[in-house]
Amino acid sequence: MTESALLDLQERFRRISLIDDSLGILDWDRATKMPDGSAEARGEQIAALQGLRHQLMTEPQVGDLLAAAEADADGLDVWSSANLQEMRRRHTHATALPTDLVEAQAKADSACEIKWRDARASDDYPSLVPYLEEVLRLTREAAAAKAAALGLAPYDALLDQYEPGGRAAELDGIFADLAAFLPGFLDEVMAKQRSEPEPVTLAGPFPVEAQTAVVRRFMDVLGFDFAHGRLDISHHPFCGGATADVRITTRYDEADFTSALMGVLHETGHAMYELGRPEAWRYQPVGEARGMGLHESQSLIIEMQACRSLDFLSFAAPILAEAFGGTGPAWTAQNLFRLNTRVAPGYIRVDADEVTYPAHIILRYRIERALLSGDLVLSDLADAWNDGMEDLLGIRPPNDRLGCLQDIHWPSGAWGYFPTYTIGAMAAAQLFAAARAADPDLVPAFRKGNFAPVMAWLRTHVHSQGSLYSTDEVLQRATGRPLDPVIYEEHLRARYLQ
Amino acid sequence: MTESALLDLQERFRRISLIDDSLGILDWDRATKMPDGSAEARGEQIAALQGLRHQLMTEPQVGDLLAAAEADADGLDVWSSANLQEMRRRHTHATALPTDLVEAQAKADSACEIKWRDARASDDYPSLVPYLEEVLRLTREAAAAKAAALGLAPYDALLDQYEPGGRAAELDGIFADLAAFLPGFLDEVMAKQRSEPEPVTLAGPFPVEAQTAVVRRFMDVLGFDFAHGRLDISHHPFCGGATADVRITTRYDEADFTSALMGVLHETGHAMYELGRPEAWRYQPVGEARGMGLHESQSLIIEMQACRSLDFLSFAAPILAEAFGGTGPAWTAQNLFRLNTRVAPGYIRVDADEVTYPAHIILRYRIERALLSGDLVLSDLADAWNDGMEDLLGIRPPNDRLGCLQDIHWPSGAWGYFPTYTIGAMAAAQLFAAARAADPDLVPAFRKGNFAPVMAWLRTHVHSQGSLYSTDEVLQRATGRPLDPVIYEEHLRARYLQ
Repeated sequence: MTESALLDLQERFRRISLIDDSLGILDWDRATKMPDGSAEARGEQIAALQGLRHQLMTEPQVGDLLAAAEADADGLDVWSSANLQEMRRRHTHATALPTDLVEAQAKADSACEIKWRDARASDDYPSLVPYLEEVLRLTREAAAAKAAALGLAPYDALLDQYEPGGRAAELDGIFADLAAFLPGFLDEVMAKQRSEPEPVTLAGPFPVEAQTAVVRRFMDVLGFDFAHGRLDISHHPFCGGATADVRITTRYDEADFTSALMGVLHETGHAMYELGRPEAWRYQPVGEARGMGLHESQSLIIEMQACRSLDFLSFAAPILAEAFGGTGPAWTAQNLFRLNTRVAPGYIRVDADEVTYPAHIILRYRIERALLSGDLVLSDLADAWNDGMEDLLGIRPPNDRLGCLQDIHWPSGAWGYFPTYTIGAMAAAQLFAAARAADPDLVPAFRKGNFAPVMAWLRTHVHSQGSLYSTDEVLQRATGRPLDPVIYEEHLRARYLQ
Repeated sequence: MTESALLDLQERFRRISLIDDSLGILDWDRATKMPDGSAEARGEQIAALQGLRHQLMTEPQVGDLLAAAEADADGLDVWSSANLQEMRRRHTHATALPTDLVEAQAKADSACEIKWRDARASDDYPSLVPYLEEVLRLTREAAAAKAAALGLAPYDALLDQYEPGGRAAELDGIFADLAAFLPGFLDEVMAKQRSEPEPVTLAGPFPVEAQTAVVRRFMDVLGFDFAHGRLDISHHPFCGGATADVRITTRYDEADFTSALMGVLHETGHAMYELGRPEAWRYQPVGEARGMGLHESQSLIIEMQACRSLDFLSFAAPILAEAFGGTGPAWTAQNLFRLNTRVAPGYIRVDADEVTYPAHIILRYRIERALLSGDLVLSDLADAWNDGMEDLLGIRPPNDRLGCLQDIHWPSGAWGYFPTYTIGAMAAAQLFAAARAADPDLVPAFRKGNFAPVMAWLRTHVHSQGSLYSTDEVLQRATGRPLDPVIYEEHLRARYLQ
């Protein structure tokens, strides 16, 4: 019985996964190739496939099959057991919410997201409040329903959607630790920077064709397989597509190639995770990437740990100089390294450097928890935001566009997502430290553009593991301990104070 | 009861149509953007969506709903009645075949298609025979099953998949008529051509960029809406995509721009049909294009009737000359007209001119009927093909690559498809004659690049009709009579002998 129930479930989740892949291509197309006038029709296509996916996931027999398989789960091997657990987690998330709540959320999120674009453009936070109020109300309702179904606290139930196994109790400790560390550390870094001469700015323009050629070259260097993926242009860079067909995007600014270059290296890190998932586990929940935190760690290992290192930039400097016809002191590895590790508090999260980025996340984490619990009301959000920025980074946003209106997450219904960025940054430091310790030639290899050692280590310890273990178990197995902010702090000290 | 059954059916067919649209984008992507290594994964995605589509179409309740709706169909308006009829036709086709036959066909077609690529490349028809034998055997079985379900003769059941309402009894008469007309007519045309000086060849190269710009300009002239569609490159040109997102493709030959130009004009004709379907009928069977014959008529009206006319070429000649820097007698409208209406018997269907094309179709129609009935065996196919070519066009293919191995249709399981090409050519002549008669300024408008009159007429009489009427009814309402080869012959006479 168990075996046949498991096989039935595997076939069903395989179909769900193939719908997800189809949706991945439709989403990619929407962002990169779709004609402007086709958005409404594309919305209908996506809604239809999502409806079919939801139906496959929530049909009554799925619960029966899961119960039957679980009744005899003791005899299962690790792989089947993990696969079954992940099926159950997904099923619980999908069935926790009544249909009318899901529909009300879809409507409210969509209305609020549209309103947010206007509100941000006109710096008018008060106009957003009623819309955000409705989103928040429904998010609270959903959190309560998922909390009951999962046996978790409401915030943890939201977090679990993006970071399976993530818990606020753990984050509280980690973020308190970081919040205590960062302000003093930031002062030291800024003082050190002030004591040194300014890095030399790179003078453009940098033609799109030259940027495209050079970022593709670096994708090759990283081992990205263009037979199973693409690079295209979109307004918001992302990594998407489907199984064995991973597509990343970027945008080019002719005045500054760094954003496209570092953005592509970042997305390539995500792509290597997707392309490195085990082929034999394809289309099963256990074969998918573990969560958003570990995913972000893979992009940040490539972008932050590896490619903003002096070692990699020693390899990259002559290539970049040749690609853009650059000469003189601006194009030395040392200057590129200083440009790419420049620290300065700023208002906008997505433009933040490695040192100040966690402060942006801690602020959002604190605020979203207070909003969900009712300790903070939306009419006070803008002030709370600005106070928090002053407290954490010593700067006060002059308006809400540079403050609480900057991110799409809350208006679009993504509550509990923000922590994954910093979980990713910490996991990146921790995994990379372990990889370096295991292979002392791993970092020096970057000087020759050799990423084979780091990719082999990541494939073994992360990519090939799919969802076999929890994020903390992956870290434990790969580094000897669960997520630990101390290693992240050591990385920051080593890079920015030595 | 009827009303609720109809609404249920409409919702179900709406979902089916949205799956079809999703498949349309996945297919387009496969042909234009997909990385080489992703073909297998794409195949899985497409199979999964097709499986869901088939399930939605064939679940037992669909039959009950159809029966309930039909029980009280007398009170339905024309639209609902046609929609219901079309639902029934699709349902009957989908349920006629047992699942194991469908799967056996998918496997045999795929194996045969792969073998066909090799066999064609190495001119080795005998190696294809066992594979084609299996395809033919299963096609016969499917034809018998569909014939029983539809109450049709087996060949008509196959034809009905592509040309709803198409019947061999009608085609026999039409093709006999054409077969009697064409050989003598071809002799006359060839004699006339020989009596005139040769047209002047256009000397290339014609850079891809210049070709792309000029074909896009002509798409604009035709009224193609780039906010709801695209032009891309693929190995085999096609018109695909989705509702409100119609995507055509072409390929460029720098030695000859005519194939891309005429190919794009042809596909744009298909696209205008798709984009002209009534918005309010979207996602319902009655709102879809009527059939492959009428579809082909729309592409041929644009390419053959309109754009190979002296009127259009008078408009196009200076644009083409400027785009490619052409000067001298080769670039006059008169010379371009003579180049674009040049007639010569050839071996390859897709390269055939307007006069000899029907002979290629008649040959295939006769042969596929004989193969299906058993009057011809596959081991005699190559000889029968070559004899037929000699009989109809006076030339004998020197090898099977230029003979019975040239088309993918039979190896891929598409039997009963070929006639739609010539139904399309005849319908094009008939519709265009009616449009010209209704508006004497319609053809002269081409001299100024004005396609608004012809497009308005086509929209009214064809595009906006969806599947409300049968092909013959559409023709009857638009031209006063059902499909009539005499008008096609008149068109050929007028263009090629006057």
